[in-house]
Amino acid sequence: MGNQKNIRRKIKTALISVSDKSELIKILPTLRKFKVEIVSSGGTFKHIKKNKFKCSELKDFTGFKEILDGRVKTLHPKIHSGILFKRDNKKHLNQVKKQNYKSIDLVIVNFYPFEKTVLNTENENKIIENIDIGGPALVRSAAKNFKDVVVITSNYQLDKLVHEMDAYKGSTSLKFRKELSQEAFNETAYYDSNVSKYFNKIMDNRYPNKITFNGTLISKLRYGENPHQSGALYSREHFTELEKLNGKELSYNNYNDIYFGLDIINSLPRGIGTTIIKHANPSGVSINKNQFLSFKQAFNCDPISAFGGVIICNYKIKLETAKEINNKFFEVVVAKDFDDKALSILKRKKNLRIIKNNQKPDSNQLIMNTLSRNFILQSSDNKNFNRKMFKVVSKKKPNKKTFNDLIFAFNICRFVKSNAIVLTNNNSTVGIGSGQPSRLDSCEIAVNKMKKFNHNVENLVAASDAFFPFVDGIESLVQSGVKAIIQPYGSIRDKDIIKFADSTNTILVFSRTRHFRH
Amino acid sequence: MGNQKNIRRKIKTALISVSDKSELIKILPTLRKFKVEIVSSGGTFKHIKKNKFKCSELKDFTGFKEILDGRVKTLHPKIHSGILFKRDNKKHLNQVKKQNYKSIDLVIVNFYPFEKTVLNTENENKIIENIDIGGPALVRSAAKNFKDVVVITSNYQLDKLVHEMDAYKGSTSLKFRKELSQEAFNETAYYDSNVSKYFNKIMDNRYPNKITFNGTLISKLRYGENPHQSGALYSREHFTELEKLNGKELSYNNYNDIYFGLDIINSLPRGIGTTIIKHANPSGVSINKNQFLSFKQAFNCDPISAFGGVIICNYKIKLETAKEINNKFFEVVVAKDFDDKALSILKRKKNLRIIKNNQKPDSNQLIMNTLSRNFILQSSDNKNFNRKMFKVVSKKKPNKKTFNDLIFAFNICRFVKSNAIVLTNNNSTVGIGSGQPSRLDSCEIAVNKMKKFNHNVENLVAASDAFFPFVDGIESLVQSGVKAIIQPYGSIRDKDIIKFADSTNTILVFSRTRHFRH
Repeated sequence: MGNQKNIRRKIKTALISVSDKSELIKILPTLRKFKVEIVSSGGTFKHIKKNKFKCSELKDFTGFKEILDGRVKTLHPKIHSGILFKRDNKKHLNQVKKQNYKSIDLVIVNFYPFEKTVLNTENENKIIENIDIGGPALVRSAAKNFKDVVVITSNYQLDKLVHEMDAYKGSTSLKFRKELSQEAFNETAYYDSNVSKYFNKIMDNRYPNKITFNGTLISKLRYGENPHQSGALYSREHFTELEKLNGKELSYNNYNDIYFGLDIINSLPRGIGTTIIKHANPSGVSINKNQFLSFKQAFNCDPISAFGGVIICNYKIKLETAKEINNKFFEVVVAKDFDDKALSILKRKKNLRIIKNNQKPDSNQLIMNTLSRNFILQSSDNKNFNRKMFKVVSKKKPNKKTFNDLIFAFNICRFVKSNAIVLTNNNSTVGIGSGQPSRLDSCEIAVNKMKKFNHNVENLVAASDAFFPFVDGIESLVQSGVKAIIQPYGSIRDKDIIKFADSTNTILVFSRTRHFRH
Repeated sequence: MGNQKNIRRKIKTALISVSDKSELIKILPTLRKFKVEIVSSGGTFKHIKKNKFKCSELKDFTGFKEILDGRVKTLHPKIHSGILFKRDNKKHLNQVKKQNYKSIDLVIVNFYPFEKTVLNTENENKIIENIDIGGPALVRSAAKNFKDVVVITSNYQLDKLVHEMDAYKGSTSLKFRKELSQEAFNETAYYDSNVSKYFNKIMDNRYPNKITFNGTLISKLRYGENPHQSGALYSREHFTELEKLNGKELSYNNYNDIYFGLDIINSLPRGIGTTIIKHANPSGVSINKNQFLSFKQAFNCDPISAFGGVIICNYKIKLETAKEINNKFFEVVVAKDFDDKALSILKRKKNLRIIKNNQKPDSNQLIMNTLSRNFILQSSDNKNFNRKMFKVVSKKKPNKKTFNDLIFAFNICRFVKSNAIVLTNNNSTVGIGSGQPSRLDSCEIAVNKMKKFNHNVENLVAASDAFFPFVDGIESLVQSGVKAIIQPYGSIRDKDIIKFADSTNTILVFSRTRHFRH
């Protein structure tokens, strides 16, 4: 216990400099109760006085009046020495005493709102002025000296401080101070990571020599991809996009499937697209102006795999569609919105997670893939298609409808794990072959799915995410009724493949764009 | 041009405070040439004087002598005002003049080596003392005021500064200063991200409210997963693990396959394991004390898919194995090492990327998965197996060999994309069904592979990454000759599945651990 008391520290003087003053009042009575001298300046000083608490002015404390419109206020040796000296170091104590510096035992600081400013303006001067210099310096000094000093960087910590000071009669424990230091450095790192992100963006430098990513915790998850793994969801932009209207907590795999499905849906025309995701692969995708049919056709592509899947659509779900959804078992349904009647029908299933999607699509985010001690970054595969990019290489030419079917199929195949083969009919998938190390295997899987579940296929077209290395893959597709095929080019056997297409009167289009996805 | 000149800034005074002095000499002659006054202190001051350049001492500049063992040196309004005042703002100019502050136009700072210290010691005091406070404050002030001030944070920038000052007769351009500010904030963000990482680690807080990740660029890649995507490889720990001995530059997909293969190989006994990766799935895996057989059996699992694949093994490749590898086409071979003769044989293929692996496996790294504006983090699926975790639920019990076969198969299935079914025979895979939304489909794919390529299978066992929802999957395996099956549990039809196993004299083991991987 003696040892414990030794590492407790009494708070005698507090320096307070906050940009967000909304919750400061929480701590002031406690500081008064334990006779803590408060030093402050500017708006914070006025705020404290207005609330009728005692407060000294920083300029009287340092003998230095802030200049440069507040750019230099606290960057003063009297302040930083008062924070940084080691309370159990005789040399430090002597130096501080000799200079007549007072100790500062508590620092309450929050920073100029840089992140918010960037979101609200493109005015560079305003943004630059919101890079806080003095605040992070104070916080870093205090956090470094956690053995002696308390640092508060977020409003939610104020209650904890009240509790701690009450528990220890105006003192704090080492554990408490160390935890706050940890949070303080999370805060300064996060802050500068935002500044760094801003500069990299305006200077158009995607891959700087030293990179930092940041995020704010949305929620810890019950577990990760599997129950023995831990997991958490973070936002890169402080924005919770998914509004849960019903059902259990979302799991790691739900989030993974939902966001993957949103990528697909965002690539489709608005208001008419449906996809069903299972194990991070689409089990079916469809576009149809009739939403009931859009859902049905996405489902019918592979009704067995769709069982327990995640539905994502970009329309407002109506009653008829909701009834149809309720006839099957799904884990999650995500929609742009829900008619009142549709929602009450869907809510009858207590466990069905019903999500309203408020996402603003942003395909400019970097994709990170962690590889042990390393990671790879890449821009997203967000290339837009138009007919001019594609080249018809067969003798038989596609009409407008067939060309549109090919574009639909080729768009979907970029979302299927490689090697990917996608068969479509009238803007609905009817067979998806995914995740195979051999392209021929993916062809056979897609064809088998089609044969199993989709009997009356008239306008069958196929897309491949990468070139066919041999004729065999295309052969198996054509034998199964495929009339038109789109694929990149690049095989040494491209000529043989064109020849085969012509000999079977098949339409062949080179997309000239590859879409691996692993 | 008039406008251009207005935003050029002459450097009159430089403040230099560097922890790493090794390349400072590069800039000193240029500073002398353009009559720049240098201010410095401590070790940097001595270093400059020793090299016979003029230099004022910081304490004479500020009138304040450093205290607290250097904890407070530059945190002084005279310094920070000299950096931060706006050169074209009359009020600022008057304030600075009135206080008799001199302008500081160039700041050269590098930080206490926090990251290196953490790598080299666990002594907390030493680590904490290496959190630089004054340095980041100087750099942040200078970087904020890039309209007027130059900030140098890395040695490689010194040459650029020499070039710039020579080009503009001792001045610098706005573009130059802004780029340096960008790099400065990348640096401070990176630095505090490391401090934050350290605290989160010692406080055992994996998922803090605000998180930052960082990395250093190893190389920009020719492109990302596809040619229309950009990409770059970063290290989380400043360590290049892969030593390329031959062949072209590694691509995004190569790195992805290599690190994935290393995860597999690291889970196998040392010196005897081989895997071949294609499209981020194993096309085969084998362990065998005879490395030639280990390679052959991994290859034979699916010789077609292995074409153009990435070989990863955890042994030193011998001549005989190298010859066998050279008989086929691969993109990459990664090994613990290579016999000289083996290496020279392999090098005959000019394009074959030959990689010596110096990786120190670390399965404690968090895995990040970016989802549009969000990301999910999780701990890795690094659970170790032992027989006690598993429960034999069939009447027929496995002997020791069969149990080991089951453990091998179950280990491999955690690396196969879900739904995963892995068939093995004598510690080699003979059929892998991967990446299907339906488990039955994965069973059929695995069985078809086996039938196609592996005819004489005696000790066939199967592993499933998650439970079988119905009897049908197990049925298809048993019909194809599987004698023993391992899977988690949890289906409402578990009893039916056990009954089916018993009725066919099949060994059934519940792993009680799931291994989804998407």
